[in-house]
Amino acid sequence: MVKTDYDLVIIGAGPAGLTAGIYAARARMKVLLLEKAFPGGQILVTDWIENYPGFEGISGFDLAEKMKAQAEKLGLKIETTEVHSLNLSTDLKEVVLKDRRITTKSLIIASGASPRSLGVGEDKFIGKGVSSCATCDAAFFKEKTVVAVGGGDTAVQEAIFLTKFANKVYLVHRRDELRAAKILQERAFKNDKIEMVWDSVVTGLSGFFGVENVSIKNVKTNEEKTIKADGCFIWVGILPNTSFLNEAVETDKFGFILADAKMQTSVPGVYAAGDVRDTPLRQISTAVGDAAIAAISAEHFIENL
Amino acid sequence: MVKTDYDLVIIGAGPAGLTAGIYAARARMKVLLLEKAFPGGQILVTDWIENYPGFEGISGFDLAEKMKAQAEKLGLKIETTEVHSLNLSTDLKEVVLKDRRITTKSLIIASGASPRSLGVGEDKFIGKGVSSCATCDAAFFKEKTVVAVGGGDTAVQEAIFLTKFANKVYLVHRRDELRAAKILQERAFKNDKIEMVWDSVVTGLSGFFGVENVSIKNVKTNEEKTIKADGCFIWVGILPNTSFLNEAVETDKFGFILADAKMQTSVPGVYAAGDVRDTPLRQISTAVGDAAIAAISAEHFIENL
Repeated sequence: MVKTDYDLVIIGAGPAGLTAGIYAARARMKVLLLEKAFPGGQILVTDWIENYPGFEGISGFDLAEKMKAQAEKLGLKIETTEVHSLNLSTDLKEVVLKDRRITTKSLIIASGASPRSLGVGEDKFIGKGVSSCATCDAAFFKEKTVVAVGGGDTAVQEAIFLTKFANKVYLVHRRDELRAAKILQERAFKNDKIEMVWDSVVTGLSGFFGVENVSIKNVKTNEEKTIKADGCFIWVGILPNTSFLNEAVETDKFGFILADAKMQTSVPGVYAAGDVRDTPLRQISTAVGDAAIAAISAEHFIENL
Repeated sequence: MVKTDYDLVIIGAGPAGLTAGIYAARARMKVLLLEKAFPGGQILVTDWIENYPGFEGISGFDLAEKMKAQAEKLGLKIETTEVHSLNLSTDLKEVVLKDRRITTKSLIIASGASPRSLGVGEDKFIGKGVSSCATCDAAFFKEKTVVAVGGGDTAVQEAIFLTKFANKVYLVHRRDELRAAKILQERAFKNDKIEMVWDSVVTGLSGFFGVENVSIKNVKTNEEKTIKADGCFIWVGILPNTSFLNEAVETDKFGFILADAKMQTSVPGVYAAGDVRDTPLRQISTAVGDAAIAAISAEHFIENL
C-alpha cells in the first residue's frame, strides 16, 4: 500500500469535523483536522441552542468548546491552516496547504457554509454597521435601531437576540410569511421591539461614518422607503465553503457537495459531512449524524485498501 | 383537509423519537410520542457513552433523562402504550393502540431495534444467568465467571464493563478478529480478566438453577468444549422493532425500514429515523440526525397538505 502522512484528513472543525474527529480518534486512525479559523464553525456565532438533543439550552460557543475538548481528549490533533487545493486524481490523496503538501488515504470535507450577501454594496459597511452575527455585534447597538433581513430560523432567532440590546428591530422579509419554526415566529410576533416589514427587500445602504439609512422596496407595490437605522444584520441564506474544491468532487448547482447514504462523494475515499453537503437540513444534529457515518465509512475504506 | 387527532405521531422514545419530538414541539405541531416501555430506548442499557458529541462521557440513563426532560420542557407529550398496528392505506393515517385508535396527518417510526438471540435455548435462562445488558445485570456476577458472545462495539464495550464485577470474562467470537473500534479492542486485549475465545460459537447452555455450563464449538476445528460459567451475556446483532408494521411500509430483507434522504418511507407522510431504518450506522449521533430531518420533513408535508 502507498505510504501516506495520514489515514484521514478532515477539513473544517465545526460540529461535523469535530464529530468525525471523535469517531476517527476512537478508531485509532492517524488523523489530522484542519481548520482555517477557530474550532466550532457557524455555531460559534449562534447565541443559544435549544434543539441539540442532550442540552436544554447551551451557547454555541460553549458547545463548540465541549466538542473540541472531547475530541482532543481522545487524541485528535487540530491544526490552524487554510486548505489551498486538493489533488484527488490518484489513490494518494493530496491536500495542498499554504506551507506544504500532505498526503492521506481518506478525506472528509466538513468545511461548512457561510452567510450569503445581499449584493447591494453592503460589503463596504461590514464592521461599520453591517453584520451577520448578532452574538458578536448586537452589544454595539444598545438603544439603537437596526434592520434585520431574512425569514428563516437564523434570521428570526437572531432578530430576537438583537432586541436584548436594540430599541427597535425592523425584520425585512421578501415574502408575506416567515420560514422559521413556529415557536420562533411566535416569539418574534410577541416581541414589542420587532416590527415586521413584509414583502420587502433591501436595495441599498447609505451613511457617512457607517450605516445611517437602509433603503427598502416593497416587491408587491414597488413602493420604496428609507428606514433610519444604525445597523443592518443580514441572514439570507448560505453558500458552501468550497473555495479549495475546484471541481475535485461533484457538487449540486449551488456548489454543495453530493454524497450518498455513506457520505461518499464522487471520489472513493472522499466523504462530505455537515453544511457543505447537499442535505435536506442543516442543523448540528444532522452534522454530527453525517460525520459519524463519514468517519466510519473512511475507516472501512482504509481497512479494505 | 381531513380532521385528525394529531399532526404527528412518533413511535418510540429512544434518541431518535425524542429528537423528533424536540423538533416537532419547537415547530408547534400537535404531536404525541408513543413508547411501550421507558423513554431512552437502547441507550438505557448502555453503560457509558463517549462518542456523542458534547459529552466527554455520560451514562446512557443520564443522557436519556436529559433528552426526555428537554423534549417535555418544550411541551412534548409522551404516552406509555404499545402500538398494535398501522393503517396507512388512506390519507388519514391510523395508529391502532390497545385501547383506542388515533389518527394523524404524519407519522415517524423510531421504534428502534433489539438484540438478536443465539437460538440455542438461551431464552429459558433469561433472568437466570442470561442477559444482554451488562449495565443492568453485571453486579449479580461479582467475583464470578461469565461468557460474553459477540465481536462488535457493544459486545466488547460490555465485556469490559463486566470485568468491573466478574473475575473472568470469556469473550466468544465466531471470527478470528473483532469488528469493534480499535480503541475498544485495545482496552479488551489489555484487560487481564478478559480471555478471547476465537473462531467459536455457543452451542448450548445448561444448569439446574441457572446457567452453570456454556458449551462452545470451534467453527474451524469443530472441537467442542464446556466452559464453567455463572452467566452468559449475548450481543450478536440486532433486529428491528417492527412487530406492528405488517408491511405497511417497505423494508429491506432484514426488516429495517427503507427511507430516502428526507427520511420518507414508501408511504408519503410516513418517516423512519434511527436504528429501525436501513442505515449504514446505528449510533446516537445518527439517530438524532435522522430524526431532525424526519421531523422537519413531516412539518413540510403537513404544510403542503
